[in-house]
Amino acid sequence: MENNNKKKKVALIGCGLIGQSWAISFLSAGFSVSLFDPTDGVTKTAKEKITAKLSDLQNHGLISKRKISDYFSKIYLAPSISKAVQDSVYVQESGPENLSIKKSLTQKIDKATPDNIPIASSTSGIPTSLYASELDGNYRCIVAHPINPPHLIPAVEIVPAPFTSKSTTQTVKEIISSIGKEPLELKKEIPGFVVNRLQGALLIEAFKLVKEEICSANEIDKAISDGLGLRWSFMGPFQTIHLNAPEGIKGYVGRYEKMYQDMFKGGDFDWAELVKNGLETELLKLYPLEEREEHEEQRNNNLMKLLIHKA
Amino acid sequence: MENNNKKKKVALIGCGLIGQSWAISFLSAGFSVSLFDPTDGVTKTAKEKITAKLSDLQNHGLISKRKISDYFSKIYLAPSISKAVQDSVYVQESGPENLSIKKSLTQKIDKATPDNIPIASSTSGIPTSLYASELDGNYRCIVAHPINPPHLIPAVEIVPAPFTSKSTTQTVKEIISSIGKEPLELKKEIPGFVVNRLQGALLIEAFKLVKEEICSANEIDKAISDGLGLRWSFMGPFQTIHLNAPEGIKGYVGRYEKMYQDMFKGGDFDWAELVKNGLETELLKLYPLEEREEHEEQRNNNLMKLLIHKA
Repeated sequence: MENNNKKKKVALIGCGLIGQSWAISFLSAGFSVSLFDPTDGVTKTAKEKITAKLSDLQNHGLISKRKISDYFSKIYLAPSISKAVQDSVYVQESGPENLSIKKSLTQKIDKATPDNIPIASSTSGIPTSLYASELDGNYRCIVAHPINPPHLIPAVEIVPAPFTSKSTTQTVKEIISSIGKEPLELKKEIPGFVVNRLQGALLIEAFKLVKEEICSANEIDKAISDGLGLRWSFMGPFQTIHLNAPEGIKGYVGRYEKMYQDMFKGGDFDWAELVKNGLETELLKLYPLEEREEHEEQRNNNLMKLLIHKA
Repeated sequence: MENNNKKKKVALIGCGLIGQSWAISFLSAGFSVSLFDPTDGVTKTAKEKITAKLSDLQNHGLISKRKISDYFSKIYLAPSISKAVQDSVYVQESGPENLSIKKSLTQKIDKATPDNIPIASSTSGIPTSLYASELDGNYRCIVAHPINPPHLIPAVEIVPAPFTSKSTTQTVKEIISSIGKEPLELKKEIPGFVVNRLQGALLIEAFKLVKEEICSANEIDKAISDGLGLRWSFMGPFQTIHLNAPEGIKGYVGRYEKMYQDMFKGGDFDWAELVKNGLETELLKLYPLEEREEHEEQRNNNLMKLLIHKA
C-alpha cells in the first residue's frame, strides 16, 4: 500500500492541529504532502510539529523505522493554494469551522485545482451542500471528517452531498483506506454527521444529569471510562446490545425498549418495528446467534487484555 | 484488602449471569459466598460456571494464583434465603428486572436478614423507592448496579433511596471498593440511573440514524469502536471535550453548544450557564489548564498503547 502511494502527493490546506494530523497520516503511508495556510509562518511551525509527532509514533512502534529526515524531505511548504494543489491527487481542507470562511476557501481551492481531483473538508458538522453547491467543481467536493486526534483515531466520516459524483466518493474512500484509516460512508447528509450526533446525544444527557444534580461530572466520566467506554473501545452500541440478550437485538429491544423510551420522551418511535424491518437481519448476518458464545468469549478476552493494558 | 475480607461472607440471591459475576468478584477479593436461586439446580450450574470463569481470569493473570479448589470451597449452595443470608455481611440480589418480582423478593430477603445488613439490588434501572419503600428494613435497601460483564467492568452505580440510611450507603461503597470495583454514587434516584441513561441517549440517536437511513448499524458501530469509543475507554465525555479546546470546557461549549443544540431540539437548556455555575470549576480542579499538554500527551500515549493492544 505504501509503495502505491510513493510517487503521489496530496495538498493540505489549513495547517492547525487537524491539518498536521492529516500530514502525519499521509506521510506515514508513503505520500508527499504540500502544506498551505493563509497565516504567515504557520506551515513552518506545522512542519516542526509534524516531525516531532512522527518521532513519537516511531518510538511507540506505530510507524516504520524510516528516517525522520526522509519524511521531512517529503513536506513542501507551498506559498499559495495554486502551488499546493499542483500535481496533487487529493486536497484536504482543514480550515476554521465557519460557514462563510469555508465557502470562500472552498471556492478558491476549486478554482485552483485541476478537474476531477477530490476536495475533501475536515469539517466536523457542516454538510457540503451548505458550502459548495454553487461551485463549478461541486461534483468533487465532499466531507472527510476525522476524529481528534486524527493521526491516532482510525474512523473518518465520508459524507457526499447529493451533487457529489459517485467516482469522487469512491476515490476518497480508497485514498482514506490506503492511509490505514477506516472510512465510514454516510448515505445522506445530516448536520453533525454520525460521530458528533452520537457524541452530542450522550453529551446532552450528561449535561442534563449534572444540571439535575444527579451526580458530578467526574462520576459521569467514570461511568464511561470505567464502564460503557471499555466495551465501546472494541464493539459499537448495536453489537453490544445484540450480545446482551440471548436472542440478540430482538430480545434486547423486547426487554428494554420500554425502559429507554420511558427515560426519554423524545425517543417516541418504534425500535421493535425497526428491528423487524431489517435491523435484526443486518446484525444477524454480522453476528449470527450460533456464534454468540464465541463472540462473548472474544469480548471478554478483549476486555481482559484492555484491563491489563490500562493497569 | 483481601485479608480483611477473609472471614467474611456475602449472600448472592439470584444466580444467573449477573449473580455469577458478583460471585467471581467477591471470591477473588477473599470473601466466601452463599448462593441462592429459587429455581432448582441453578446454583449447582452457577458454581461450575463460576469456577470456569475464575480459571479464565487466572490464565489472563487478572487474579492471584490461588488454587481454584480454594475458591471452590468458599462457595456455599444455600437451600433457602434464610440460610443464604445467615452470617452474611452483605446481600446482593440479582433477580429478574421486573418490579413486582423485585418487590416480593426484596420483602422476603428483608424478613430473613438480620438488622443493618445492606440489601443491594443489581437492577439496571428500577429505583429502590419503587420496590422497597414499605419494608421495615427499607433503610438498608439500595441499588448496586454493575455493568455487563460485571466481573470485568469496574463501574458499579450506587443509588440510595431517600429513605436509605447514610451508613448503608457508606458501607456498600466500602464493600464495593474492597472488591476492586469503582463505586459511582448518585445523589438522587432517577429511572435508568446514569449508565443506562447515557447508553440510552446514544442508543436512541443510533436507532434514529438507522431509521432515517443515514447509514447502516455497522457503520454506527464503527463510528464508536474505531472512533469515539477509543477515547472513552480511558477518559469520559467531559474530560474529552475539556481537552478538545485550548480554553478547556468553556471554550468547547462556547464553540460547539450551538451546533449540538441545533442537532437536537430536545436539548433546550443552557450549557454555558451550567459551565459558569460550577461545571468549569469542577473540571479545572480535576484537569487544570496548565496541565493540558501533559494530559494531551497522556491521552495520546494511552491511545497508542490501545492501538497496539487492539492490533
